Amino acid sequence: MTNIDEISAFLAREFPQSPCSVDAIGPQSATVRYRVDERALRPGGTVSGPTLMTTADVGLYAAILGEIGIVALAVTTSLNINFLRKPSADKDIIGECKLIKVGRQLVIGEVSLYSEGDDRMVAHAVGTYAIPKS
Amino acid sequence: MTNIDEISAFLAREFPQSPCSVDAIGPQSATVRYRVDERALRPGGTVSGPTLMTTADVGLYAAILGEIGIVALAVTTSLNINFLRKPSADKDIIGECKLIKVGRQLVIGEVSLYSEGDDRMVAHAVGTYAIPKS
Amino acid sequence: MTNIDEISAFLAREFPQSPCSVDAIGPQSATVRYRVDERALRPGGTVSGPTLMTTADVGLYAAILGEIGIVALAVTTSLNINFLRKPSADKDIIGECKLIKVGRQLVIGEVSLYSEGDDRMVAHAVGTYAIPKS
Amino acid sequence: MTNIDEISAFLAREFPQSPCSVDAIGPQSATVRYRVDERALRPGGTVSGPTLMTTADVGLYAAILGEIGIVALAVTTSLNINFLRKPSADKDIIGECKLIKVGRQLVIGEVSLYSEGDDRMVAHAVGTYAIPKS
Repeated sequence: MTNIDEISAFLAREFPQSPCSVDAIGPQSATVRYRVDERALRPGGTVSGPTLMTTADVGLYAAILGEIGIVALAVTTSLNINFLRKPSADKDIIGECKLIKVGRQLVIGEVSLYSEGDDRMVAHAVGTYAIPKS
Repeated sequence: MTNIDEISAFLAREFPQSPCSVDAIGPQSATVRYRVDERALRPGGTVSGPTLMTTADVGLYAAILGEIGIVALAVTTSLNINFLRKPSADKDIIGECKLIKVGRQLVIGEVSLYSEGDDRMVAHAVGTYAIPKS
Repeated sequence: MTNIDEISAFLAREFPQSPCSVDAIGPQSATVRYRVDERALRPGGTVSGPTLMTTADVGLYAAILGEIGIVALAVTTSLNINFLRKPSADKDIIGECKLIKVGRQLVIGEVSLYSEGDDRMVAHAVGTYAIPKS
Repeated sequence: MTNIDEISAFLAREFPQSPCSVDAIGPQSATVRYRVDERALRPGGTVSGPTLMTTADVGLYAAILGEIGIVALAVTTSLNINFLRKPSADKDIIGECKLIKVGRQLVIGEVSLYSEGDDRMVAHAVGTYAIPKS
């Protein structure tokens, strides 16, 4: 398994403008955080859909890097997200990511998204990633 | 909460040809079983995709009935399923269903599907259901 | 391109119990028909969800066979379906399938589903298929 | 039908930082444009996933406003996107959006996304929207 510092450094290079950081890496899993600021909000005081989608995508990416290493470059092939509740405008978004299939060609994972400190899920996503042949 | 016998009786009426039965009903959750026989198989000795989709749909339906009662009639509005591994041809399919949003108009749930006795998920589904206004 | 008779023969072998047949094969496309009978219906007089999902899956499969030939064996990796309207109980289901990506490892297609003779879509599906390395 | 200027003004208020604009509004349809700049790119010279998801979401929103008017406020309940090809880094993203169901409670639409001037689809999305009871 790749360690969290290597993964954070890689993500910082790949997504230089991303306000996402990695809180934890585990076996086939990762926890990520989107630091919510003005740009992540929508009028009405809630976090935007693209913010939640970004958190899910970066989180699954981090879990994949933890599992298969930095070398291989995964490409997102699909993302399916259900928006369940209005997230808080003043809390970070936390994404808990779990890989449910790690194949040689395809990795699939699911993400539960929360406003920090609140255990009611605000969104749920499933993403699939193609692993280029090395 | 509606009890398991009421739910089983309702499903038997609604889906008279279905080989699915309810193993357990819990808070916002249900476990269902598809009794795999010849008709559920595909050449090559595996369980067909429609069998897995049926199990997911019936299981979420059962969890909804357990949560909101038999009166309201839920209608499936979407089902998204990822096929992860080849299920065993000689094991029942077990669906573990959990509702992740119970709104007045919309209910959303996810399902982890297994070949009985094997803890590697064979498929994962997310379904959404519209609840007609009463 | 593989011709419609070869594809129909292959599907009859692969899905021996399926009431689906191929009406047409075109460039990256196929039209399929599910002959609706008692077993495809639900109480209330409508076509069941699994019937629609089966039509979408078989139709995309037929379009893939038309495109890449019978040799390679495609495996469904995901299916996402939205149910839009109640289909007629006494009409066949027609699936119009179009491939939107034909990669070496992954094929993706979309399907518009209709009750025959009615131009209002009853369901819409997107499916992804893995092509095993030959 | 609401006209394009009203819709553009509304979207500018709702999504003040969005680089999306409306190119055309038709019956149950809309064409939108994401003006790709530095912030929309990823290392390697391609348009980011969240950029494509934003275009799909804003485009379906515009089509809904065109159909049901500015008054009702639609809420995205799900978005399912498949990434098909690498978009060009130096072309705007164009989203062609079509509503496939306009119900009283639920609207569903699909979006084909392109790099301007290239007719190979780069991504395809399906979104669902809840319409609050008025």
